[in-house]
Amino acid sequence: MEKVVNRVKLVLAYDGTDFHGFAAQPGVRTIGGELSDSLETMFGDVPEMICAGRTDAGVHAWGQVVHFEVEQALLARYDMNRFARSLNRQLGPEIVVRDAVVVPNDFHARFSATQRIYRYKILLAPNNVPFSRHAHWWIPGSLDTDAMQASCEIILGEHDFSTFCRKPKSEEVVSLVRHIDSAQWTVRECDTGLELQFEIAGNAFCHQMVRSLTGYIVEIGRGNRSLDEFDYALEARDRQFGAPLAPPQGLCLWEVRY
Amino acid sequence: MEKVVNRVKLVLAYDGTDFHGFAAQPGVRTIGGELSDSLETMFGDVPEMICAGRTDAGVHAWGQVVHFEVEQALLARYDMNRFARSLNRQLGPEIVVRDAVVVPNDFHARFSATQRIYRYKILLAPNNVPFSRHAHWWIPGSLDTDAMQASCEIILGEHDFSTFCRKPKSEEVVSLVRHIDSAQWTVRECDTGLELQFEIAGNAFCHQMVRSLTGYIVEIGRGNRSLDEFDYALEARDRQFGAPLAPPQGLCLWEVRY
Repeated sequence: MEKVVNRVKLVLAYDGTDFHGFAAQPGVRTIGGELSDSLETMFGDVPEMICAGRTDAGVHAWGQVVHFEVEQALLARYDMNRFARSLNRQLGPEIVVRDAVVVPNDFHARFSATQRIYRYKILLAPNNVPFSRHAHWWIPGSLDTDAMQASCEIILGEHDFSTFCRKPKSEEVVSLVRHIDSAQWTVRECDTGLELQFEIAGNAFCHQMVRSLTGYIVEIGRGNRSLDEFDYALEARDRQFGAPLAPPQGLCLWEVRY
Repeated sequence: MEKVVNRVKLVLAYDGTDFHGFAAQPGVRTIGGELSDSLETMFGDVPEMICAGRTDAGVHAWGQVVHFEVEQALLARYDMNRFARSLNRQLGPEIVVRDAVVVPNDFHARFSATQRIYRYKILLAPNNVPFSRHAHWWIPGSLDTDAMQASCEIILGEHDFSTFCRKPKSEEVVSLVRHIDSAQWTVRECDTGLELQFEIAGNAFCHQMVRSLTGYIVEIGRGNRSLDEFDYALEARDRQFGAPLAPPQGLCLWEVRY
């Protein structure tokens, strides 16, 4: 008789500082690896973790979504709130399960997602704030935030983002066409300087795309690149027209919508 | 011939997470020890570090002030901006020198200070935020912030804070009378919950006094203690009437005034 399995969806927040990103890799700490280990402790079985958006080393999440499968008979011991609490105790403070629900078996954390929202935080101030340095990019000096805001118009809608994506590893031809639904910068005065936040929403993002776009837009804010150059770079579909990546610690996978 | 010395005042920000507090102790990482080591590298001499307010393990600072003495001939190699930059390079990202100035030789970081301002941050939310967990006290559930605000009235002015201070180690009789100039809670809605901030200013604070007061006021917010009990506890001048300490990571020495 075939075992009946349940598919479980988790909403996760995590501090990516001390992890080598999401994807499980032998010999290093990863979010996915840590989750699998904890679930193995609970169920005696290592489930495969599928996530909505792989995050790189140092990148955080507030609303990462994953799914995995577990034998119904094993999951039945828990109600889902108790399951989330048990898993949180296993995981320790760097990873927080915000929600755990049983979903239909055709739900897929990656392929069912219709929108991903990322946030990138910059602290603009003469001095860095050491006790929050793992959650922003510190930039001394000033930035032209009007130009940065204006740059958002250029990326709205559907584009081939080859200029702003890490080259896919596989030999196959992979489409780097993505649709950006919204993109904006907000500026908030705080006690230690100006806090700039870039929020970008789209159907999907290719590898390092948000950090690559942020890096370029900061160059615009610094006056090193123009809006016309940004437009040209996007149309060129060629990584050599890109700019240095923004560092990982400012980035957070904020929300995934289905 | 006696060497001419200069007294230097530093304004420091630091992340207290991975330090055993400020005061230098053999065999453990401390803020003061790290500063002394860096200054030794620069000047070949270990200066004694005097700080405005010793902070415990895990407690942060945005505006800690220290002074030390250095031979004038050695300091003369630097202008003070360059000195601050060199020291910051030595120190790494956990400690930031925000300002460095030469002060008169009668300036004393501790005894010349007229006011210290501390801030304590609480995140009130169903889930902790892992990537900022080292800079707040996470409390799930709710707190009566009106009662917490009302409690501030009780501590204003001059009081003997024996109930809210760690017992002094020395055998001498030490006064625990302090003057509180202001105390208030502010509540800010943020994306991940409610951010409560307690700001308290006074001429000086005894050991663990802010965490002890915060711990008590949170008990008031939870409905476990009343304002009358707080008043009584303060008047009792006896630690047995206190409440559990608020955890260190929510606390920050914000500013010292002279």
